[in-house]
Formats: sequence, C-alpha cells, structure tokens
Amino acid sequence: MSPQGARLYRAEVLVRFAHCDPAGMVFYPRYLEMFNNLVEDWCREERLPFAEHAPGRGWSLPTVHLDVDFVAPSVMGEVLSAALRVRSLGASSIALEIVLHGPDGALRVRGGVVLVLMDLRSRSAVEIPDDLRTRLAAFLE
Amino acid sequence: MSPQGARLYRAEVLVRFAHCDPAGMVFYPRYLEMFNNLVEDWCREERLPFAEHAPGRGWSLPTVHLDVDFVAPSVMGEVLSAALRVRSLGASSIALEIVLHGPDGALRVRGGVVLVLMDLRSRSAVEIPDDLRTRLAAFLE
Amino acid sequence: MSPQGARLYRAEVLVRFAHCDPAGMVFYPRYLEMFNNLVEDWCREERLPFAEHAPGRGWSLPTVHLDVDFVAPSVMGEVLSAALRVRSLGASSIALEIVLHGPDGALRVRGGVVLVLMDLRSRSAVEIPDDLRTRLAAFLE
Amino acid sequence: MSPQGARLYRAEVLVRFAHCDPAGMVFYPRYLEMFNNLVEDWCREERLPFAEHAPGRGWSLPTVHLDVDFVAPSVMGEVLSAALRVRSLGASSIALEIVLHGPDGALRVRGGVVLVLMDLRSRSAVEIPDDLRTRLAAFLE
Repeated sequence: MSPQGARLYRAEVLVRFAHCDPAGMVFYPRYLEMFNNLVEDWCREERLPFAEHAPGRGWSLPTVHLDVDFVAPSVMGEVLSAALRVRSLGASSIALEIVLHGPDGALRVRGGVVLVLMDLRSRSAVEIPDDLRTRLAAFLE
Repeated sequence: MSPQGARLYRAEVLVRFAHCDPAGMVFYPRYLEMFNNLVEDWCREERLPFAEHAPGRGWSLPTVHLDVDFVAPSVMGEVLSAALRVRSLGASSIALEIVLHGPDGALRVRGGVVLVLMDLRSRSAVEIPDDLRTRLAAFLE
Repeated sequence: MSPQGARLYRAEVLVRFAHCDPAGMVFYPRYLEMFNNLVEDWCREERLPFAEHAPGRGWSLPTVHLDVDFVAPSVMGEVLSAALRVRSLGASSIALEIVLHGPDGALRVRGGVVLVLMDLRSRSAVEIPDDLRTRLAAFLE
Repeated sequence: MSPQGARLYRAEVLVRFAHCDPAGMVFYPRYLEMFNNLVEDWCREERLPFAEHAPGRGWSLPTVHLDVDFVAPSVMGEVLSAALRVRSLGASSIALEIVLHGPDGALRVRGGVVLVLMDLRSRSAVEIPDDLRTRLAAFLE
C-alpha cells in the first residue's frame, strides 16, 4: 500500500486532573492508559474482533513490548491530538505507533506498542488471518 | 566499579486485585506504576534528593524514555521479585534497568527507564553533581 | 427554583477495559474516577472557576464527603448514562448527586459527593459568592 | 464478644507520588484503592476465602456501599496508620469501618464499606456460613 493510501486513526485526549501529578504534569503511567484507550477505541470503531473490546470472543491482544519517548510535558486542561498507525505486521504481531501532540502542535509523546494475537483458550499466539491482515494493512505506514 | 561491586536495589511487589484486568492478569500500565514506585522507594531509601520523594527540594527527576518487554503474564496474588540497577549515567540522565521475576523464577517484565535531572525552577536539565554521581555509580552494572 | 426549572448535567461514560477487574466488572475506585471526571467536565463546560479545572485560579474544590450505592455491576463496553445535579448548597459547601444508569435503563450507581470551596493560599473554606451561588442554584433539584 | 475482645486489623500505608494530585494531596479515588488493598490484605492474612484474594474459589465479595469522610488532606511521603474493624454482620453482608490517621495522630479519612457475600456462579447473595461468621465476629467492635 502506498504511503498516500495509509490510514491514520485520530482522536483527541483531554488531559484531566486525574492524570496529573504533584508537578501538575501528566504522570507517565497515565499516558500508557491513554495508549491503551486509543487502541481500544480504534479496535472498537474498526470492529477488530478482540476479546478486550468484545467480551466472549476467542482472541486476546496482549501488549508484549513498549517503547516511549516523553518529549515534553502536558498539563491539565490541554487537549492532545493522538494519531495511531500500524508500523509493521508479523505472523502474529501488530506493531503500532502512537503519537500525541499538544495544542501548540509540538510533539509530546511518541510510542511504539507491539501487540500479539492470542487464542484465549490455548493461551498461545495465533497467525493473523488473511481478512484481518487486510484490514490492519490499511493502517500500515 | 567492577561488576562484583555493583549494587542492586531489590524489593518484592504483590500483584493485587487492583492491578489485574478482566483476563485476570496485570494490566500493563499498572506495571509502570510498579516501576515508578520502585524508583521512588529506591530514591527514598538511598536518600537521593529528588522532589518526587522529598517535596520542597529544587530537583525533579522526570521520566523521558521507557522501553519494556512484557515477557510473561502475572496473576493476582503472586509476589514478584524486583531488581533495579543503573545501566548508565549521562551528563544529566540516569538510565535504569528494572526486572520483575515471578515466584517461579521466570522473567515476567524487563524494562529500561531513562530519567533526567531537572531544575524545578528553570525547568531545564542540570548536570548530575559529583557527590550524587558517586552514589548513583554504586548501582552501575 | 421549581423542580421544572432544575437543570441536570448529563454525559455518557464508556466502560473501558482499564476500568474492569478480574470479574470483568467495573472496579469500584474507577467509578469514583468517573465521578471526579464528571464534576470536572461539568465545571469546565459551565465555566465554574475552580483550580482543578483552570490552573492558576485561587479557588480549589476538594471532596470532603462521599456516599455511594453500587446497585448493579457494569461490564466492559457498556455506555453508561450519567446525570449530575446539585442537592444542596451550604455556606461553603456544594452537595451533588450523581447517578449512573446502564444501557438497559437500570440504576447502576447512585452517589452523593460533598465539595467545599477553599482558598488555595489560606487553605481555609470560603463562602460561595453570590454570582457563583446563582449559577450553581440552577442545578438545584 | 466484649469490646475488649474486638480485634483490629492494622497496617501502614505510604502516601506515594502516584497517589497525589496537582495540589500535592492524595486524589480521593486513590484513598478508595487504599481501602480495597486493606480489605484484600486483611482477607489474605486472615485466610478469608474470597475469590478476589484466592482465584478459583466460588465466592466473591463485591462492595455495595461506601460512605467516606475526607477529614484532612495527606501529602506525599507521609505514612498513614490504617485500622479496619467489622461494624456489623448481616445475613449476607459485612459492614467494615476503616480509618486512616496521619503521622501527627490526627484523623485523615474515616470510611464505611459494605461488602456482600456472593456466589460467583449464581451471581446472587449467599448467607455467611457459621464458621466464617465466627471468624469475622472476632473483628466486631
């Protein structure tokens, strides 16, 4: 898929009182909750069939790797612009990139998140089926 | 400092109901709260003079980078063994490694955390002073 | 103010993976975060001038009392209907009622929250000024 | 059981960076996490057989009511003294009182928590069996 065709999942994230630490800035584990919420919203809105977002299904999508740069702090009341895309697809793994920009347009957080498709019963990784792979590939950069 | 001389900060972390997700496993942002608590305990017990652990001081120690492998899941009631050491020291930065092992001895989580020494008033990075550098170097691998 | 004239602040709250415990239901401290977010959104949207929602102002609005009935559990993926109103106004205190209903229309949570208007510098309660009292009274049941 | 005989469950709770809001005080939903952790520790240490503390058992112990007074704020680094006792026992319900005192000896938080014994499969309340009732009664005030 050409870069022109790549889709981005975009959302806005309000920095809340509940996210902020005594320095008045986002406490970094709360950024990871934002990341998880973004993946959840993306999966729900795109109807990706994972147990975390549709209880009762047979697939789970645990996070196996994370790498994050906290470039600049965010403060209460700011609305951050989030963008999510697929960086690469493995046999069972989905590597995402999530970036958060401030209302000033400057980068605040850039993160890579690797998820693995798991069968809930066998608790082992399973290959991403073709139809799902096609839908995920639309978000490949 | 020779490897023999390197100190490790060790602690135990109980996996609580509050940490676990609907799959009964630790929700990954809660591991990052565990990481933050470990750094906090280490700083407090070693009397490292950061604002996060001693309000009113002029230095802060924000987290600027994170990379984590979630190797195997942990479930409620398990007591994890945590170990923290200093991986490297920059002019203003402190790179830590934190590992969590399960009661079975197997690796559960391995993370790198980079902190930067900041002046609270100027909000800019400051050089790690010599006496603090010496104390941190005791934890260098 | 007649009951007909009383305003309600209404919002929708998605039950997320991050809210749920190993039983797959909302972990009750997460309901209290939902409550805090609702009060925050109400204050921001109504431009009520509290420090929690507009950093730098001189007033804070800490929670001093809470009483909550958890009537029925909520599960991941449900969209709850929230309604907030003012139950009573004291010299410095604001008593709110917050109710959450499920998509089935049944009551899930009913809570009372008492806030007190505080001066940030003196850290003491201050009387609710007349103009603010008038605006809050519009939400009196 | 005479008041002299009543047992208290006691613990210490460190106020962490992760608990504190931009005012530098404990964010109130974090007090409820402390409450939940205290109940969890009490049940585990007293070997009370609830699913939240021993996965796989057939009983759950959801919280159905909460009433809390936040009497005075707590700040980062303080060690709070917690005490838990049983206020009353119903057919299926256990009413607890939890109090947190500061290092200055002053009351910070006083809360009532009502739990109900549930069968995990039928999702209905069950009567507290006699042997469990006897063990809980030791903590009756």
